[in-house]
Amino acid sequence: MTRQKKIRLGMIGGGEGAFIGAVHRHAAGLDGHYELVCGAFSRDQDNNTRTAQSLDLPAERVYDSWEEMLEQEAALPENERMQVVSIVTPNHLHVPVSIAAAKAGFHVFCEKPAATSFDETKALADAISSAPVLYGLAHTYQGYPMVWQARHMVESGMLGKLRKVYVEYPQGWLSGEEESHNKQASWRTDPALSGASGCMGDIGTHAFSLAEFILGDKITQLCGELNTHVDGRRLDDDGAALIKTDNGVTGVLIASQVCAGEENPLKIKVYGEKGGLEWRQMEPNSVIYRPVDAPYQVFRAGQPSVCEDAQSQLRVPAGHPEGYLEAMANLYTAFAASVRSGKSGTADKVPGLASGIRGMAFIKAMLDSSGSEQKWHSIADNHD
Amino acid sequence: MTRQKKIRLGMIGGGEGAFIGAVHRHAAGLDGHYELVCGAFSRDQDNNTRTAQSLDLPAERVYDSWEEMLEQEAALPENERMQVVSIVTPNHLHVPVSIAAAKAGFHVFCEKPAATSFDETKALADAISSAPVLYGLAHTYQGYPMVWQARHMVESGMLGKLRKVYVEYPQGWLSGEEESHNKQASWRTDPALSGASGCMGDIGTHAFSLAEFILGDKITQLCGELNTHVDGRRLDDDGAALIKTDNGVTGVLIASQVCAGEENPLKIKVYGEKGGLEWRQMEPNSVIYRPVDAPYQVFRAGQPSVCEDAQSQLRVPAGHPEGYLEAMANLYTAFAASVRSGKSGTADKVPGLASGIRGMAFIKAMLDSSGSEQKWHSIADNHD
Amino acid sequence: MTRQKKIRLGMIGGGEGAFIGAVHRHAAGLDGHYELVCGAFSRDQDNNTRTAQSLDLPAERVYDSWEEMLEQEAALPENERMQVVSIVTPNHLHVPVSIAAAKAGFHVFCEKPAATSFDETKALADAISSAPVLYGLAHTYQGYPMVWQARHMVESGMLGKLRKVYVEYPQGWLSGEEESHNKQASWRTDPALSGASGCMGDIGTHAFSLAEFILGDKITQLCGELNTHVDGRRLDDDGAALIKTDNGVTGVLIASQVCAGEENPLKIKVYGEKGGLEWRQMEPNSVIYRPVDAPYQVFRAGQPSVCEDAQSQLRVPAGHPEGYLEAMANLYTAFAASVRSGKSGTADKVPGLASGIRGMAFIKAMLDSSGSEQKWHSIADNHD
Amino acid sequence: MTRQKKIRLGMIGGGEGAFIGAVHRHAAGLDGHYELVCGAFSRDQDNNTRTAQSLDLPAERVYDSWEEMLEQEAALPENERMQVVSIVTPNHLHVPVSIAAAKAGFHVFCEKPAATSFDETKALADAISSAPVLYGLAHTYQGYPMVWQARHMVESGMLGKLRKVYVEYPQGWLSGEEESHNKQASWRTDPALSGASGCMGDIGTHAFSLAEFILGDKITQLCGELNTHVDGRRLDDDGAALIKTDNGVTGVLIASQVCAGEENPLKIKVYGEKGGLEWRQMEPNSVIYRPVDAPYQVFRAGQPSVCEDAQSQLRVPAGHPEGYLEAMANLYTAFAASVRSGKSGTADKVPGLASGIRGMAFIKAMLDSSGSEQKWHSIADNHD
Repeated sequence: MTRQKKIRLGMIGGGEGAFIGAVHRHAAGLDGHYELVCGAFSRDQDNNTRTAQSLDLPAERVYDSWEEMLEQEAALPENERMQVVSIVTPNHLHVPVSIAAAKAGFHVFCEKPAATSFDETKALADAISSAPVLYGLAHTYQGYPMVWQARHMVESGMLGKLRKVYVEYPQGWLSGEEESHNKQASWRTDPALSGASGCMGDIGTHAFSLAEFILGDKITQLCGELNTHVDGRRLDDDGAALIKTDNGVTGVLIASQVCAGEENPLKIKVYGEKGGLEWRQMEPNSVIYRPVDAPYQVFRAGQPSVCEDAQSQLRVPAGHPEGYLEAMANLYTAFAASVRSGKSGTADKVPGLASGIRGMAFIKAMLDSSGSEQKWHSIADNHD
Repeated sequence: MTRQKKIRLGMIGGGEGAFIGAVHRHAAGLDGHYELVCGAFSRDQDNNTRTAQSLDLPAERVYDSWEEMLEQEAALPENERMQVVSIVTPNHLHVPVSIAAAKAGFHVFCEKPAATSFDETKALADAISSAPVLYGLAHTYQGYPMVWQARHMVESGMLGKLRKVYVEYPQGWLSGEEESHNKQASWRTDPALSGASGCMGDIGTHAFSLAEFILGDKITQLCGELNTHVDGRRLDDDGAALIKTDNGVTGVLIASQVCAGEENPLKIKVYGEKGGLEWRQMEPNSVIYRPVDAPYQVFRAGQPSVCEDAQSQLRVPAGHPEGYLEAMANLYTAFAASVRSGKSGTADKVPGLASGIRGMAFIKAMLDSSGSEQKWHSIADNHD
Repeated sequence: MTRQKKIRLGMIGGGEGAFIGAVHRHAAGLDGHYELVCGAFSRDQDNNTRTAQSLDLPAERVYDSWEEMLEQEAALPENERMQVVSIVTPNHLHVPVSIAAAKAGFHVFCEKPAATSFDETKALADAISSAPVLYGLAHTYQGYPMVWQARHMVESGMLGKLRKVYVEYPQGWLSGEEESHNKQASWRTDPALSGASGCMGDIGTHAFSLAEFILGDKITQLCGELNTHVDGRRLDDDGAALIKTDNGVTGVLIASQVCAGEENPLKIKVYGEKGGLEWRQMEPNSVIYRPVDAPYQVFRAGQPSVCEDAQSQLRVPAGHPEGYLEAMANLYTAFAASVRSGKSGTADKVPGLASGIRGMAFIKAMLDSSGSEQKWHSIADNHD
Repeated sequence: MTRQKKIRLGMIGGGEGAFIGAVHRHAAGLDGHYELVCGAFSRDQDNNTRTAQSLDLPAERVYDSWEEMLEQEAALPENERMQVVSIVTPNHLHVPVSIAAAKAGFHVFCEKPAATSFDETKALADAISSAPVLYGLAHTYQGYPMVWQARHMVESGMLGKLRKVYVEYPQGWLSGEEESHNKQASWRTDPALSGASGCMGDIGTHAFSLAEFILGDKITQLCGELNTHVDGRRLDDDGAALIKTDNGVTGVLIASQVCAGEENPLKIKVYGEKGGLEWRQMEPNSVIYRPVDAPYQVFRAGQPSVCEDAQSQLRVPAGHPEGYLEAMANLYTAFAASVRSGKSGTADKVPGLASGIRGMAFIKAMLDSSGSEQKWHSIADNHD
């Protein structure tokens, strides 16, 4: 066995005060596969410098802008320069930075959503497919081992033929007006920075992506409604949809950021002819399995009964809870394995471009449906 | 204080093998306000006799048919004859028996739904309003004390201006085919006995009624879909709807009988500007209250912090669970108080005709919406 | 089939303001097997009269004292007089009334504890064994169907050879001083009315009895400590013990009435070589079963996987919660069956004299142990 | 602000197949304060090499033995050599390695227990107090932010004067015989490697330490019993104790490794005159607060109502669960702050030597008590 070198990571966005940048850094650090070597953390240069110093980065690898970072890193010797770039900016930069990074030969690990609109994903897809790089999308919840257990239960037939899916993501943190909140609230409700949808783009895509991942099938039609419950808000802060697959599964998707008092209780329930399952983000180490006419069972992270894909993404024995950062770390660690293996396109066990495009197609259909008097709308993910 | 005489109760339906008849008898017995004096339990005379004997009824007060019972009881001296009739037949008899009983001067306590269709409720309303009798409808869940606490939280402003309501009622007992089930499954999926809707009529009406009760407001529009997931079934076994009130509350209503493995987890969540609440039928002695930016609180049956309407419907101290039969008993006990007070029309603290009509209007709108390409449908409860 | 006559029930104690008397009346009413025909509810004659009138009792069957009631009822014709007497007085009367009732030929259904001391149980045992009557003891928690399921799991070997038992009963209602509480608190902390132990006699006996019932074995040794945490209280309000059986099971028993904020969370956990189980009074319709190396399972009241003894004591389908009153009603209903069958001594499925004696032997051992410097004390239930 | 340099960390123990070594590495990596620079992971040189290579360590910083590592690292230039050593060996090496490391001038971060016996802690204390180094002990559970919240609730008087503490730590992983288990089971049940106590030393100390931390007081007396439930096992696998403080708090401590089916549900409940609290390791982001006569409240990690000490140890917003590795990372991160500040002795917010000595004093008292006929034993932590 030869020495397993750390992967050189750069970060764009994620200065002090940002939420998700720190999450990515914790996640990249947890398993020891990455070394952060450079960053352009903020356009505010004080913030940029402070962030870099707190991370023990040498001054020459801290850049004033993402454009400069991509250019100068590309000019470094191959064994020094950044290999992977984490993009943790507001949404409107996800596509431009991803495309530029791919063109410069860097693997891209991008915070979701992949884009601000479905249309924008076409250029992104073209750029990624033309470059010998990996593209990973931080649908963090797919990094939870027990989400893989849920998917395994469906795949292995424990539920029988599927009939129902209910996925809900009710948050409360945008119940008040923006003034009373933080920087997060401010850019996430600004169409110029966030995209055409607020709540549905921010967390509805998580719910949608999680549902398709566990179902192993596409949700092809929806009848949805977006709402803005807080006066003066410029984007939706709430919505729901009746949903369908082509294989006869029906259900409901709910996403809201005005469910006052709720934290982050993303939950999914799936039912088939032979039983049902339930997974909850706030108790992520369990999957409840309800077979017909038998006691319900709770599959627990770390127990021998759990599937191999779940086991391999766990770090500690049953009963020692792993959480959100571990889920994100699983994506980073899986991405590292694909980087080391020389793969391009989609990394094993990491949501990729296809997932990003599906998410934006879902948003497009929700926006179309919400204003429409027509009941059902298709979720189309082709760019023609 | 004078002696508080027991109320003489008769029962139509509820022979051996029926579910809800026994529930009504337990409920009527719990608080000691009723004495069962007569019955027409089943058209199967063996069943009818066996049921009557197990209940210690004298043979002369056991009748071959409900028509005979109403006629002969009416002919008895006033201080002997039945005062209240409980109707626990399959749905198609609810209206004919209710009307006949009202005309004969008996107070009516009817299992839900009030009717098999919205149209049928007109004659019922006419009959009830013309007779000096009470009409109660067994929306059992409104007998839970902590449902009153939830309503109180809304009414007293603990949630602020309301924004969201989610109500779900996922059962699993009709996941298989009828053959594999019992008598219950069989009549409930037969349009001639059950009415035009299966699942939505059976349990969707509970969800709808509960939501309007706690909101203290009418749900005026819906966009719904009914499904039949089991091959060969003649009525819907599943459905969902996006819902709205005229006051800006939006939400989702879910009812299903093919959520394999689920028992009876009726649940409601309501959110306003200042906080949210949650009540679950399977843990009925708690209401979770989630104020913005404070620890969530669990209001518990029997604690001094619980509202008077909840307290007065409880029997044992906090921590001694009361359940489904106690909820039904609360309706019977409240009905008894109105009987004793000489009231007619609607009994205090018991769902009445208006609630029954709203339920049937909801079903009508669901049926209209489900087949339609139009997105939104009104829930209209006027008979013009 | 012949008509199943109601059993004529009398009640001693249980006037307005008492807690447990009403519980017994609800329980006796729930299944329709009893008719309350007489009572001596309170030595306060106003209370006695008011209680009787609220229960629709004829004045001639309301007695000034329990002595008078036993005497006069015995003088009535056999087909009119009380058959069963419920004793719901403070503890100090349990033995005298039970003995007198047995001697007068009435079946006795007595609230726990059976006596105020172990010594007192000798005369009780003599009286009961000499009379052709049944004796039932209201260890209510043994009326919960899922407690039978727990016992079944042990008996049928699902846990393997037993090793551990933990039973805890932490209440909070005596956290304050008596003045701030009700009538309940006052007599329960008075040695003259309650007996030599407060908390341990009141609820420790429940915990002990439940543990022996589920283990199917005697707890033979303990090392215990009683505490009085509230200044000025005359009896223990708290305690705990290390416990052992002769078959190698070890464990802990906890009972407290100063666990501020707790309601009534009696809980038991039992572990054997092959798995463990857990039952909680506040969620009484579930038993958690934890087999080694497999997902844990939740056995639910009403599911087909539940044992026959549990099923037969349930009234409604899975998911419709039954609670404390139903548990007590199960004892009353089982007692009724033994009354009808002409049995004497112990009724089937109802805790009897042996259970009462065990409870008092436990209290004796706790009192001995608490003051002692010796570590282990035997729980001896022989009267020699 | 100047650049915040990473701290150079070395590790002794923790080769492939070990559990806790990897936990320490994840924890040290999570917040980015450490760089692993050297290690002596295993006496098995293949394991040692493989572990080092997987961690991207240069060959010259991988040592054959801990003695060699301490010697050679001490000889390196100050700005290169290890600053902190993590000791993650079996228990019998904790004291010898800690003493040698302290003497060589390295800060020590040691897995618990601090020693294999109370006597052994004397030399350890002498060595630490004589050297200008920090000593941290990995009582991981004190790294959970909500454990600090629990302590805060006690300290700030939310519970009033304390009365009761119950702490329980029931695991099931040693329910079977050692052969059927892993390397972990094998050394943990070997007195030569583990020390004089098995279960109580391994996890009882966690429970004890957690209780004293939250109480903010010493547990001074116990009456305990150790058991060995699995035939042939050489150390205790189970035990319990009645416990007391000098300030009138009484309670129970339970630790077991034969509670078949249990994972890692360490739980503590504390009650005072005004209310109670509960914290559970398997749902570590909540503290339940039960005030007298008010709804119970659930304090949640990340909510503004949580105390500053808890907030400052959290990384993500409320509802994004943090777990066991984050708890350990909190200890590492707090230790890093004290390293940087030049402190010696005990690091802020990290259990130190005093905690280690208390744990061993507890074990000594448990061993004394278990074999004794005397009821109460003191927990004495002085070395005279």
